[in-house]
Parts: sequence; C-alpha cells; structure tokens
Amino acid sequence: MAKYSFASDYMEGAHPAILERMLSTNMDKCVGYGLDEFCNSAREKIRVACDASNAEIHFISGGTQSNSLVIKSLLKPYQGVIAATTGHIAGHEAGAIEHGGHKVLCVPEYNGKLKASDVEKLVKTYQTDDNNDHLVMPGMVYISQPTESGTLYSLSELEDISRVCKENNLHLFLDGARLAYALATPSNDVTLPDLARLCDIFYIGGTKCGALLGEAIVMPDPSLIPHFFTLVKQHGALLAKGRLMGIQFEVLFTDGLYETIGASAIEYADAIRDKLTQKGLPLCYGSPTNQVFVCVPDEIRAKIEEQAIVGFWEKPDDDHTVIRFATSWATSQEDVDGLLALLDTI
Amino acid sequence: MAKYSFASDYMEGAHPAILERMLSTNMDKCVGYGLDEFCNSAREKIRVACDASNAEIHFISGGTQSNSLVIKSLLKPYQGVIAATTGHIAGHEAGAIEHGGHKVLCVPEYNGKLKASDVEKLVKTYQTDDNNDHLVMPGMVYISQPTESGTLYSLSELEDISRVCKENNLHLFLDGARLAYALATPSNDVTLPDLARLCDIFYIGGTKCGALLGEAIVMPDPSLIPHFFTLVKQHGALLAKGRLMGIQFEVLFTDGLYETIGASAIEYADAIRDKLTQKGLPLCYGSPTNQVFVCVPDEIRAKIEEQAIVGFWEKPDDDHTVIRFATSWATSQEDVDGLLALLDTI
Amino acid sequence: MAKYSFASDYMEGAHPAILERMLSTNMDKCVGYGLDEFCNSAREKIRVACDASNAEIHFISGGTQSNSLVIKSLLKPYQGVIAATTGHIAGHEAGAIEHGGHKVLCVPEYNGKLKASDVEKLVKTYQTDDNNDHLVMPGMVYISQPTESGTLYSLSELEDISRVCKENNLHLFLDGARLAYALATPSNDVTLPDLARLCDIFYIGGTKCGALLGEAIVMPDPSLIPHFFTLVKQHGALLAKGRLMGIQFEVLFTDGLYETIGASAIEYADAIRDKLTQKGLPLCYGSPTNQVFVCVPDEIRAKIEEQAIVGFWEKPDDDHTVIRFATSWATSQEDVDGLLALLDTI
Amino acid sequence: MAKYSFASDYMEGAHPAILERMLSTNMDKCVGYGLDEFCNSAREKIRVACDASNAEIHFISGGTQSNSLVIKSLLKPYQGVIAATTGHIAGHEAGAIEHGGHKVLCVPEYNGKLKASDVEKLVKTYQTDDNNDHLVMPGMVYISQPTESGTLYSLSELEDISRVCKENNLHLFLDGARLAYALATPSNDVTLPDLARLCDIFYIGGTKCGALLGEAIVMPDPSLIPHFFTLVKQHGALLAKGRLMGIQFEVLFTDGLYETIGASAIEYADAIRDKLTQKGLPLCYGSPTNQVFVCVPDEIRAKIEEQAIVGFWEKPDDDHTVIRFATSWATSQEDVDGLLALLDTI
Repeated sequence: MAKYSFASDYMEGAHPAILERMLSTNMDKCVGYGLDEFCNSAREKIRVACDASNAEIHFISGGTQSNSLVIKSLLKPYQGVIAATTGHIAGHEAGAIEHGGHKVLCVPEYNGKLKASDVEKLVKTYQTDDNNDHLVMPGMVYISQPTESGTLYSLSELEDISRVCKENNLHLFLDGARLAYALATPSNDVTLPDLARLCDIFYIGGTKCGALLGEAIVMPDPSLIPHFFTLVKQHGALLAKGRLMGIQFEVLFTDGLYETIGASAIEYADAIRDKLTQKGLPLCYGSPTNQVFVCVPDEIRAKIEEQAIVGFWEKPDDDHTVIRFATSWATSQEDVDGLLALLDTI
Repeated sequence: MAKYSFASDYMEGAHPAILERMLSTNMDKCVGYGLDEFCNSAREKIRVACDASNAEIHFISGGTQSNSLVIKSLLKPYQGVIAATTGHIAGHEAGAIEHGGHKVLCVPEYNGKLKASDVEKLVKTYQTDDNNDHLVMPGMVYISQPTESGTLYSLSELEDISRVCKENNLHLFLDGARLAYALATPSNDVTLPDLARLCDIFYIGGTKCGALLGEAIVMPDPSLIPHFFTLVKQHGALLAKGRLMGIQFEVLFTDGLYETIGASAIEYADAIRDKLTQKGLPLCYGSPTNQVFVCVPDEIRAKIEEQAIVGFWEKPDDDHTVIRFATSWATSQEDVDGLLALLDTI
Repeated sequence: MAKYSFASDYMEGAHPAILERMLSTNMDKCVGYGLDEFCNSAREKIRVACDASNAEIHFISGGTQSNSLVIKSLLKPYQGVIAATTGHIAGHEAGAIEHGGHKVLCVPEYNGKLKASDVEKLVKTYQTDDNNDHLVMPGMVYISQPTESGTLYSLSELEDISRVCKENNLHLFLDGARLAYALATPSNDVTLPDLARLCDIFYIGGTKCGALLGEAIVMPDPSLIPHFFTLVKQHGALLAKGRLMGIQFEVLFTDGLYETIGASAIEYADAIRDKLTQKGLPLCYGSPTNQVFVCVPDEIRAKIEEQAIVGFWEKPDDDHTVIRFATSWATSQEDVDGLLALLDTI
Repeated sequence: MAKYSFASDYMEGAHPAILERMLSTNMDKCVGYGLDEFCNSAREKIRVACDASNAEIHFISGGTQSNSLVIKSLLKPYQGVIAATTGHIAGHEAGAIEHGGHKVLCVPEYNGKLKASDVEKLVKTYQTDDNNDHLVMPGMVYISQPTESGTLYSLSELEDISRVCKENNLHLFLDGARLAYALATPSNDVTLPDLARLCDIFYIGGTKCGALLGEAIVMPDPSLIPHFFTLVKQHGALLAKGRLMGIQFEVLFTDGLYETIGASAIEYADAIRDKLTQKGLPLCYGSPTNQVFVCVPDEIRAKIEEQAIVGFWEKPDDDHTVIRFATSWATSQEDVDGLLALLDTI
C-alpha cells in the first residue's frame, strides 16, 4: 500500500515549469561550463531579485559541494569556520570541511541557531590567548536559513551576527539549501536583498526547492574570491553542460517563482503542526518552515509509520522519538489530508 | 547568421528518450543519494552490458570529478598516477589531481596514446633506484578511450597495458568520457566486457554521449574501494536527487542505445575526413572517432570559421593551425552538408 | 633578578650525557636519513626496553609532526580520530590534523583522560546510525600518557581502552611526549612493554625528556604502515642528519637513563604539591607527574609571579587562576627550595 | 679498510664552534618555539649579512620541509610552481609539493639551471590560452643556488629571472640548501644582499653547510606571508627547543663564518677537477662548487669505488656512469690527498 510521503523534500523530480523549459530548449546549442545564455540570464534575474547588481554568481550541483568550495576558497590555511554544533557542515558532510583542511569551530546551538554573542565570545577567547599562534584562527561564520532544525534567523538576529563578523574580520556565509521555504514562511522577515546586504556570500538552494539539482552561490562583492571558476573546476564541480543549471534557475527566478514555490509546503506544514498540537503532541525546536518535528511515544510512532513515511531525528529517551514530517513544493493535498486523518485516529 | 556547429560534443541538452523518461517519471517519489530504483535498474543494465555481474557502480556528475575521486581513492599517499603527457588529468583539470595530493607521472604520448613499454620502463626505473623511498611510487595507470586526440587503443594494446599493470601492481583506470563514440567506430575492437575484464576501474561517459550530465564509474571487483559512497559524499559529489543520473543511464542502457548513439557522429566525422583528405588537407593524429583534427593554413582557417564553429587545438607554426571538428549524437545532417559544401569552396 | 623557573619542561638544552656523546662522535662519518649506526643502535635498545623485538621505529623531530604523520598515515580518508576534548591534537596544534584531512571526534575528558565507555558509546552511535555513510567513521583513538593535565592512565584503564579498540577495529595511538615523567612516577603501573602490547603505535618523547629534539615512534607490528619512510619524507619530516636523533635516543636508552631521568622532577613536583596542600591551595586535576596545577586567588598569583615563572592554564572565575608549575630533569634544587620558601610566605 | 669519503656533504655532525656554543649555553633557560634570544640574535645577524633590515626569518629543520612550507604558503590554490626538470622539488621530495596540493610546472634545465626566457614563454602560453581558467596558473619560480648539478646562477641571470618574475606577478623563491658553497666559489658574483634584493623569499642552508640541522628562511618583506608562524606549527615544523637552531645560525653568522666555511671544500673540489681533467676524464655540467661530476667508464668507476665512497648520478650509456665527488667543510686534506693519488693510478 502506498504510504503518505513526508520523508524529505527531495523525493520528486523538478517543478513542471523547469521540465517544460528544458524540453523546449533541448536542441538549442550553447557553449559549456556555465558561460551560456541561460546561465547569464539566470544570473541577471538573481541579481535583480537580490538587489545586488554586481554580484558574481556560480551554479554548483549540491549543498556539500557548495559548502566545501566556499569555505576552502575563503579561509586562509590557518583559519577555521565557526558553526553551531548542529550545523550541516559540523556533522553531516562526511568530514568534507576537514578533508579540505579546515577545522569546524563549534558554538552552542539554540534550536539550530547560533548566537552572535557566542561568536563574539569565541573570537575574544582566541584574541586574548597569549599562545593563539598555536591555535586555529576563526575566519568565518557559517549559518543556515532555515537551519537544520527548520528555524529562522530574524532580520535583527542576522544583523547582529553580521555586525559581529564585520567587527572581527570574519566572513559571513549563509547556506540557503532550503531558502525558498524560509521566504514563503509568513513570520520570516529576511529577504534576498537582506542576505545580499548582510552576508559576504550565500547560496540559494535549488535541489530542495524545485530543481533537479543546483545551488546558486551569490557573492555580492565579485572580488571576494579571485579565480573561483578555476577552483570550481579543480574541485571537479564544473558541469560541462552548465545550461542544465542555468535553465532551472532562470525558470525559478522568472515571475517570482522562487519566492512562492514554497508556499503550499508551509501551509501544509502549519496544518500538520496544528493537528499535532491539538492532539497534545509536543512540537520540537519551534520550526515555522516546511520541516515539522514532533516528539512522540514509540507506540504512536509505530502507528504513524504504518501509513506514513517520516524521518527519524533523535531519541530523547528509550520510549520516545523525535520524528520529522517534511513537506515540499511537491507535497499533495491528498497526502496531507490522509496524514491529518491518520493523526486524528491516534 | 547561424553557423554550422562543430565546436564540441556537449552543446545540446539530452537525447530525447532521456527527457521523455524524466518527464513521465517526474512526480514519482523515490529515495535520495542514488539508492533509488532508477539507479538500481541502471546499474543492473550496465552490469549486463559489461558482463560484470558483481560490479559496483556509482554515478558521478562529470569527468574531472570522476578522475579526481577515483585517483585519490585508489592511490596510497606515497603514490602517483602514470598518464600520457596529453592525458586529460595531466593538463586540463586545473591541477585537480595535485590538489588531491598526487603527482601525475608523465610518459610520452603517441597520437594521444601511451605505450605499455613506456609504463614498464618508468616502473623499472623506479624499482631499480636505490633511493626510491625518496621518490613518488607509480601506483596506477590512467588512459582514455577514445584518447584526447580521438584515437583508440586496440584490444591487443589494452591487453598489453593491462598485463604490465598486473605484473607491477599498478591499478588500471580508463576514462571513457567519450566511450560511446569508441563503441560506434567500425575499427574499434574493444567492447564493454573487455573493459570490465582488463581494467580495475573505468567510467562510461554520459555528459558527452547523450546525457545532461553523469559518468558511470564501474568497478568490476566491488571490494576495490571500501566506503566509496562516503568518499563521494566527502568530495561533495553525491547528488541528493540521484534519480537524475539513474534515469539517464537507465535509458542509455535500454535496447543498446549507448552502443548505437554515437553511430551517426562517426559517419559524419568520416564524411568530413574524406572531404578534407580529398582537398589535400592533412588529418592529424589518426583519429577514427567523432573528433576530426586537421592542420590548415591560417587563411583557410579564417574562411572556415566564417561559417562554422570549430575548436582551436594548437599552432604547429606561425602560419598553420590544427583545428577540430567535433560531431556528436546531436549533429544534424544539415550542418554536415553545409560544412562539406563549404569545404568544397576552399 | 633571576626568577625561579617553572615555566615548562623544554627550557634547557640536552642532558649532559647526550652532549658528551655528540661531541665525541662529531666527526664520525655516517650515512644520512636515519639509516646510520647510531639510529640502528638506538632502535635496538628501544626494542629491548619495550620487549618488542620486531618493532619498526622512526625518529621524528617533534610532537605535532609525530601526531600529524601517524594519524594521517593510519586513517583512511573517510575516518576520523577520537580524542578527549583536552587532547593536544584537539586544540593545540593549529589545526594540523584537519590540515591533514581528518576530523577530531571529541569525547568528554576526566582530568585529561578519556573513558573506554565513552569511546564505545561514540562508536555504537556511529554504527547504529542508518545514514552513517554520510558521517565520519571513527578510525582510531588518540590518548596521551601523561595527559595534557598531567594525569596517568592506569594499566587497567589502558587495557580497557585497548580492548574496546580491538573490538571495534580502532587503532590505538599513544602520545608519550612526556613519557619519561610517567615512567618515573611512583603510582604509575604502565611500563614500556605494556605500551608495546596494548597500543598499535606510540611514541617515546625526547624533546621534553632530556633531548634537544626528537620523538621515537614505535610500531610493534612493523607492517602497520607500509612505506612510512616515504611518508616521513613527503611530510618534510626526514632529517638528513638522522644521527642527531639516533645519538640522543641511544644515550637515553643506555643504562635505563630514560626510565630514571624524570625521577628528580617527580620528587620536586611532589614537594611543591605538598607545600601547596599544606597552604590550603587546591590542587587541580590530580596530576601525580611533573606538572603541578593549582587554583589560586589572583592576588596570590601576583605574589608568586613576582619571583617565579609559571604557566597560565585557565581562569575558572574572575578572581582565580589555575597556574602550572612544571618541573623537569633540569630543574635545580635551588629553584625548588626558593619556590617552597616563597610559598611559605604566602 | 676505511675508504676516502666523498659520498655527500652531510656525513658529519656540526662545525666545532657550533658544538662549543651549544655546550656552553646548555643549561641557560629560554623560552620555546624560536622566540628565544639565540634565535633573535641569529636573525639580527642574518639581517645584517643580507642587508635586509626588516626581513622576517624562520628556522626550519630541513630542505624539503622548507620547500613544502614556502610553496604551499605562497601559492594560491589554483597556482603551480615553475621549476627546472632537475629541480629538487620536481623529483626528489617524494611528491611533497603535490601532497601540498600544487603542481610543479617544469621548464627545461641547462646544467641544472632554468632560463628566464623559458619561464617567460611558459607564462605567455598560459596567458594567451583562451581556456586558461581550466589550467594551473603559474604562481612562482623555484630555483636553487647552487643547483642540484652544482652550477651557479650569475648575478645577471638572476636579475633576468627576477625581472621576468616581477613583470608577470610570479614570486621568486631560491633554495639555498648548499648556499655556503656558492658563496665560497671564486667565480660566484651573487651575494646575500643580492638574494635579498632579487628574491621574494629564499633560504640559507645549514644542514649541508656545517649545522646539525636547519635552514633559515628569509623574507625581505615581512608582510609576504601572514601568520607564517602558525603555518609552521600546523605543518609540524615548529621545534619546541628553537634554541637549537638559533644557536647554530648565530655561530654561523658570527665573524662571517657562513661565508668562509665552504672555502676548503671548493679548493678540494677544484683539485679533484684538475686531476680528473688531467687524466682526460670529462667533467659534467660545469659545476664550480663542492660537487664534482665526472663521466667514467665502468671499469674505472669500479677501481675508484674500491677505495673511495662516491655518489651514483646517472648512466648515460651501458658502459659509462656519471659519479659525484662531494666535498664539504668537513672534508680532510688526508682524504683528498688519498683520492688524488688514487686517481693518478688510473
């Protein structure tokens, strides 16, 4: 029996408008390596959306590759990157950052977010250590929007972090693998132009937001990383048929699709959150985006998993489990209705 | 005015059958990271085509990533990789192999091919050096089929190289970025099962052979590289939506498409070669595949480039240039006819 | 005015017997790179002292180089090294381990020591994670004897750790930068043969134990790391005049010098500990070796530092500081007497 | 029977003045990591000798470590280092440069030297390649003085190379592992101040020039490599007892010892060269320094090797061998007389 599907936000192919455009342009000839007109058009649209007219933009196939490339390219060999203990780079990328030669310097997480004050404290500790030339120097801050726990930095929090970074010569890098869901969340007050203004570099996620693959790395200041193209090639991350990513981001940034593609996912997630709350099941982390975390007794988990595919998150004790329902642009009303009815029976 | 297009073999999107299949399966839900049914089906079809029933197969987005991953994963830190001086890894990957920590040990090239006897000589020189523990130990041989010059190793040459490798504890790795064009060339006598029998590891190129992106790395002995999946993740080369490559290779390996997709490209290339010869223009390197190299006086080059897009290869002297015509599965009869007519006027 | 010196255990040159031997052999000619007779003789003496007749032994200039070389050489690219949060490699080597491509996986520290049970727990967490092919695999355990806090693993603790390692395919690596002080501590029950029996690899510290420089890496199983010599060369860690380290370790392992060289340091440290206790100042971490840690009010710290050079360790609160007195083979009775008298006045 | 020893220039310990100074200062207490007064004094003396009053100077244990550290620290990740095919980094450092992530870009060698015009040509080829963002960018030039073949760059040649470097944004790095022998050669016209004026960075060799170990890296512009100290630590190349190198270089740069220590070696080498020429044996490469290369029939080689230890260099054909006689500051008149007598009997 087919189950209601809430396993993740990358279970389907691409938004239909993307496939249509791929089909209609399939035999158009164009140059390789991202120098084609589709990529250029996509870049221009992203610049407009970000209000960053000089931005340098590169399309990279996935999140770990983007994180690894940006961090290695920006840090000096003697520097490390600051992240929350729950940051994707800290624990879920098979050691890609260390493979690139850099230490991840962890600060505490609060529902997936780090605090400007903890960053400041870590930097001061480094700066005031008499032997700090034996230590890894903090060189940048990595954050995600939404975070790995589905939470959002408010504009004011982001401004604080940005200020601390500027005051301490730290680059600020934002991982937007699920950025479309942040932009579609009613309580969100951080816009693309805000990101371009406050971050040194960030990326706009495609893979989890309607594309087949691809993240758009945006550097508002194009002089940030000289020869980034060659670094992309050296990391094996340069696609010969760059058009594949150009077409997708062109479609996502036409008529504001990227800013609305996550709307239904948020509505569905809210409906699930309402139902869980109504059933007295405690939501976790306070995520307002497309990831719904809830702590359930294991017998309820078993009942849910009979009819729905969900994600395992953690086990706070022997009898309970935190599970995740992920909605996406592709989630169907039918699946949501089925899940809500199922939850009613619990 | 549109020009006849012979710039490269990655100017278009994908073979129509691939796009059709992507469209028809677009909303099918499946797990990520290449563990889905499309990937599994593609793997099984490739195993059959290669007569390698135990082979481990991974799909990687491009050639440089594949070369870099395989070489880094197979070599010990104290080893280097042997390649022809014209090998793609030796000069055209922005130092990706050295970035991974390994030296490329060059042997002479003969129309793009290396010789088993030169490999043997290099290894003997290493083995007989009293101070070879201060040197880079040869650990593997890298070859391409077709080579960067369009030429093909014969079965007998490949067997020689394979034998020398086995006798000297060298892994043999074959880059098949354009393998479909080798398989479609009448004079070719090396089959997929031959590759699986003679190489430790090789890849079947998708990007230049009808796919949007993707190379299928084949390890006939699945114990060759433990935890290759994690290494792929660590290199940022693991696609969340692995289905994208699974679908494409499934189509390419259905009804023998991969083995025939290059046929028209070879016919067209042969027609161009015939015409050039007829015009007294000297072909270079002896390529029988989809890349046609010819040395032309610069005034003829100028005339050709008025109406056709070709590739620059090298300048043997101040007055001549070697240019390349590349055909592909997507080359049109119309472009070929136009080019042949143009060459007639020279 | 000269101050009483307790700043560290590497403030002086070498034990006089070492300098004498260097002088008397200075113009002897010998081959380079550690293949000379001094090195060979030193190796043989160390094998005897460790009851490890087949051991492969390499002399490396310092601790960070040894840690970095051993860890990089032993780990697979997808693995990380487990260490206590206070482990030297975790925080005081400028990111050398990450520079080599590997993550340090931290477990809690208890007075500088890690617990076998915590190692086991970390490994089980990894092993039972369904997605552990996206994670760094634990590949080895790094411990120090004495630890960075001056404490010692008991034989029983070391046996536990060794057992957990064997059961879980983890290499066990012990950093013995201050090993002579462990061996000279009355409460110590771990001998050199115990280390050779229980560790896969360890080193015997010279730099802090009477030599000018040098650590002796001991691999009881000589097949542990193939081509280690070449790896040493590749890391720039191979000294042309290997004799310099051979002579020193030959002297240190003649007539049991290494096992007694730390005795006076321990006696002096005990005297300092007694005096501090008598004065009601709380010792920290429970170190029985040559490092004495004590938590003092800042006005007492100021008084001490007027006449003695000590090390700063940490500030538990705004009014107190943990300081370190380090004794060594070179500490003089005069300095100790002076310090004890000074402490009496507090 | 003891043989006449000409195997290499690192067969003995240290110059007696160095050992004396080590002995007399052995129990002086000083801080670690090269921050001590011996190192500071040595640095100041070197600055004076080089007429480079702002130079930053670091002491590193050996040549491969110095090459590896300097090259990795100076190059951007997308750059490579230009060297002669016979350059030490190109073939005799176990791949240390590639291990650090960089390609060695070889240019032809002429008796061990490279030519400014070849460097210029390589750079122009890179600069005029339309696809050079797929290539390794030349970022620096590595040369040795004396070269691996014993030859010397003249001041005019060095000025040419320096000019080409400046014109093309290439750093110029000079490996002076045997620099004392260059300085003691009558035909040499390149002084230490010339090196400081023409190179971005260079090192003054200690290991082969009278020290136990150590090379002094000199950066005339102290802003050349920020945080080099931390990079040294991260590479495991920071000695705790930095005094060991400080004392040695202080002695070598007192009363001009470094500039005269090689004089007898050159006189002896000249005597050997005269004798070989007189016997009709062809000298190779034109070395005027402490390395004497000669091509001899294999039966003569056998006779020589009965009584003298020499180095094997290469076999130009089946019947001849190029052998090397290396003299040093420690070579005895007795050995030279013995060798000359032996050569007379051939």
